Amino acid sequence: MTTFAIAPVTDSIKAALQHKIDYKTKPLGALGQLERLALQIGCIQQTLTPALHQPAMVVFAGDHGVAHEGVSPFPQEVTYQMVFNFLQGGAAINVFARQNGMNIKVVDAGVNFDFNQHPGLVHAKVAMGTKSFLHEPAMTTAQCETAIERGAAIVKTLHDEGCNVIGFGEMGIANTSAAAVIMSLLCDIPLEQCIGRGTGLDDEGLIRKKVILAEAMIRHNRIDRTPLNILSTFGGFEIAMMCGAMLQAAASGMIILADGFITTAALLVASKINAHVLDYTVFTHQSNEQGHRLMLSHLKAVPLLDLGMRLGEGTGAAVAYPVIQAAVNFLNEMASFESAGVSNKA
Amino acid sequence: MTTFAIAPVTDSIKAALQHKIDYKTKPLGALGQLERLALQIGCIQQTLTPALHQPAMVVFAGDHGVAHEGVSPFPQEVTYQMVFNFLQGGAAINVFARQNGMNIKVVDAGVNFDFNQHPGLVHAKVAMGTKSFLHEPAMTTAQCETAIERGAAIVKTLHDEGCNVIGFGEMGIANTSAAAVIMSLLCDIPLEQCIGRGTGLDDEGLIRKKVILAEAMIRHNRIDRTPLNILSTFGGFEIAMMCGAMLQAAASGMIILADGFITTAALLVASKINAHVLDYTVFTHQSNEQGHRLMLSHLKAVPLLDLGMRLGEGTGAAVAYPVIQAAVNFLNEMASFESAGVSNKA
Repeated sequence: MTTFAIAPVTDSIKAALQHKIDYKTKPLGALGQLERLALQIGCIQQTLTPALHQPAMVVFAGDHGVAHEGVSPFPQEVTYQMVFNFLQGGAAINVFARQNGMNIKVVDAGVNFDFNQHPGLVHAKVAMGTKSFLHEPAMTTAQCETAIERGAAIVKTLHDEGCNVIGFGEMGIANTSAAAVIMSLLCDIPLEQCIGRGTGLDDEGLIRKKVILAEAMIRHNRIDRTPLNILSTFGGFEIAMMCGAMLQAAASGMIILADGFITTAALLVASKINAHVLDYTVFTHQSNEQGHRLMLSHLKAVPLLDLGMRLGEGTGAAVAYPVIQAAVNFLNEMASFESAGVSNKA
Repeated sequence: MTTFAIAPVTDSIKAALQHKIDYKTKPLGALGQLERLALQIGCIQQTLTPALHQPAMVVFAGDHGVAHEGVSPFPQEVTYQMVFNFLQGGAAINVFARQNGMNIKVVDAGVNFDFNQHPGLVHAKVAMGTKSFLHEPAMTTAQCETAIERGAAIVKTLHDEGCNVIGFGEMGIANTSAAAVIMSLLCDIPLEQCIGRGTGLDDEGLIRKKVILAEAMIRHNRIDRTPLNILSTFGGFEIAMMCGAMLQAAASGMIILADGFITTAALLVASKINAHVLDYTVFTHQSNEQGHRLMLSHLKAVPLLDLGMRLGEGTGAAVAYPVIQAAVNFLNEMASFESAGVSNKA
């Protein structure tokens, strides 16, 4: 498998950054999480004057065989229909990315539909959706590695084009099922606590989802529990591709914007492959999907926003982007007590 | 006193708005607080296609006689020094308002300094700061009414110029002291729970602040507890002016962005004068100042953000502004299941 050389983010510039932050014209610590963010971004970029360039939002779409087991209230064709919606600019992620100046790339990671060429679509299809992991592994190890590599390649291109901050989004009917099982195995949290209503299951549907996912876990209980095995047994192509994309983003020194339940599951896999990916990650939003809170606390992550959203597509990251920009801006643009001639605390 | 004719925001368009929201290409309710906001703004503007025009941030500055009693770690001259910082564009509120396209107006409501004419400064000074309410009422009733009227006039002008969404900020050394006493009396919450560290008091300073404010409350315990009496006895000119500004904003049908501890105290007074001002209010940020959480729950308010900030100046509202824009944008720009050809839930 491709290996990713991720440099740990060091603290060498932290004291200088903290000093700069502390002498801005405001009470000590009064910008709260924005100060924490400014410190993190300054450390990632190893500069007192960090900058965000060509922010990108990459939305990976993939289909899941397990969708046919009745784990989602939406039919599988919604995945490809939503890809068209992304390409036409009508989805929530288009609205928010457009508002906040993020360039969207839509990636066919493995949708069960043959798309024609489209300037906004990256063709990276590994297969026409995964197999149902209720009966067999979702994908082969080779497919999983292909997905990881293709995700990495997409990010490499963006980085070469000058992008240094990247959000990840996803679309794939039934992918909360995949994410829940991956989370349970990688975090060692009981499956029941990882399963939520996804796009809106009713009580009966939720019970069915729990039964099916428990069965699937039993079917595969003999696998060697490496991150890669767990990913290929239960994952989606969009999750595997995001995992590779995140590892490459960290290896390229980019800021990673983690979003909701599915993207954080991809990050979870990435972090088990190389924990330093987390040094580069900003957690943007606490999803309302059951399980995300536990996933974030497993990662010791404090998300910026909690707007009760549970839409996926990268919407949490896109809505949070101006807050990240605000952190960079205050560090660069605010006056110091000295430069503004303001008396500091006695 | 000026009366403000505030039309209650009616629910007449709510069902149509909810229908529009529910048929956007997303799971039901999946945009969480953004959906609640879109509903509120649609109802305020009585339209299915609301719009935000010429967003403004008005920062009111005033000095407080009680600053001389040692309730703040910063000296009083910081108020006027920060006004210069606002005018030069170097304060946090300048950075965030600039980033998010909000026009800033800085208002001298009653700073203890003689400012020359400056294109960015609105001269509305009532006096060179208030008296110390430890010894006497902070201002006369006539001064309080003047402040309310001048605040209203500033908003009227902005509204005439086409602005329909307005954030309020403030600057005034010692104004958390004024806000704490006002809160205690208007919400009937023990003073102790309303007092926090402000710009960063240490433990000793916090005790001193509590002793002084308790003494001040005892000194004035015979006043008739009308909102206007409480405001004139303990308030600052910036608080009184914001109160009038908010009442006028609601009377003009504008969206009010409530910010931190001081601006919410002004809103509290306004809401006791006319409760319908709250129909027009979006609560943007939960301040880290002790007392703000209780103040918000007294107002049954759920703030959008909780970034641990406690800076004042309107910074919470300015950082939250893109979230409010996002709510309006998804309502206007997202495709419906029908228009995008996406299958809805079975």
